Amino acid sequence: MEIMRVRGDLVCSQRVDGLQHASLRVLENNKGVLLVATDPVGVPPGKWVFTNVGSAARLAMPDVTTMTDLTICGIIDDWDA
Amino acid sequence: MEIMRVRGDLVCSQRVDGLQHASLRVLENNKGVLLVATDPVGVPPGKWVFTNVGSAARLAMPDVTTMTDLTICGIIDDWDA
Amino acid sequence: MEIMRVRGDLVCSQRVDGLQHASLRVLENNKGVLLVATDPVGVPPGKWVFTNVGSAARLAMPDVTTMTDLTICGIIDDWDA
Amino acid sequence: MEIMRVRGDLVCSQRVDGLQHASLRVLENNKGVLLVATDPVGVPPGKWVFTNVGSAARLAMPDVTTMTDLTICGIIDDWDA
Amino acid sequence: MEIMRVRGDLVCSQRVDGLQHASLRVLENNKGVLLVATDPVGVPPGKWVFTNVGSAARLAMPDVTTMTDLTICGIIDDWDA
Repeated sequence: MEIMRVRGDLVCSQRVDGLQHASLRVLENNKGVLLVATDPVGVPPGKWVFTNVGSAARLAMPDVTTMTDLTICGIIDDWDA
Repeated sequence: MEIMRVRGDLVCSQRVDGLQHASLRVLENNKGVLLVATDPVGVPPGKWVFTNVGSAARLAMPDVTTMTDLTICGIIDDWDA
Repeated sequence: MEIMRVRGDLVCSQRVDGLQHASLRVLENNKGVLLVATDPVGVPPGKWVFTNVGSAARLAMPDVTTMTDLTICGIIDDWDA
Repeated sequence: MEIMRVRGDLVCSQRVDGLQHASLRVLENNKGVLLVATDPVGVPPGKWVFTNVGSAARLAMPDVTTMTDLTICGIIDDWDA
Repeated sequence: MEIMRVRGDLVCSQRVDGLQHASLRVLENNKGVLLVATDPVGVPPGKWVFTNVGSAARLAMPDVTTMTDLTICGIIDDWDA
């Protein structure tokens, strides 16, 4: 599970149906690259989180049919960046 | 979900049957590498999109048996490249 | 789907049964790394192709039980390398 | 299976239900990047381990429904770092 | 399928049950990184091999329930390193 930082929400008016009503966040990984993740936890910007990729990303959603490949799995309380 | 930019359509006369009639787009990722994606949304060149890889790429297609590993999932409205 | 170039056939006398009678090609990716792919299309050396990885690589084979993680999916007709 | 080193435990008060009661460790990979893994073995900090990613990470857990994408699979006894 | 070189056996006294009695080899990839793979072929050190990752790694094992994410699939006879 990769460690990333939440940068903000995603403004997106048009998306495939399979994403349903999932909240989308913009994350920054350890290389400074921005990615889009589904967020079942509800994490505010600035927090450090760990994430699941691949089929595990779907299993981490309340509805496992949500079509995602990156999901926030938890908030890290204590972290020296 | 990775953030990429649509560069154009793919000219391809010969392809495996499993791709069916899916529209194929050429995308550019954050490293400047060009990739081929299936597009169930219908996105014009120049737009920023976010994409699914792996088995999630198939679930994002209207026909989930489409044989792809990269699919456009939505258009990003507001994005500072 | 990644874009790669066909470099030649693979000379390999000993391989696991799961690969069956699949044709194997040596491909070069955008970083100059050589990879081995199954080829259901029949592509001569020098051609640019796009490829599937992961479980999609198996779905692209005529026999979906072929044990591969990289398959050629189509030939690109027009490409500025 | 990638070779990594155990750096410590993860302090995490809030996480998705799918992780259940799995022990979480912070690992360092060969690039010096820190990752979070589930640990069914019980490995102390400092040890070298090898790990599974993807769906194999779940199969390596005693409960295969644990929602992880990185799991410790074994301790390496003799290793020249 | 990635091309790697066999470097030796893995000395490992403690490992998860899911690996069963599979032989484990240390491989070196094209970046010089060492990885651990299951070996259903029986390959001596020094040989060049090609490998499967992900779920295909399990399908390449005689027992497909073996919990691995990297498996040797064949020996390359002729290879200019």
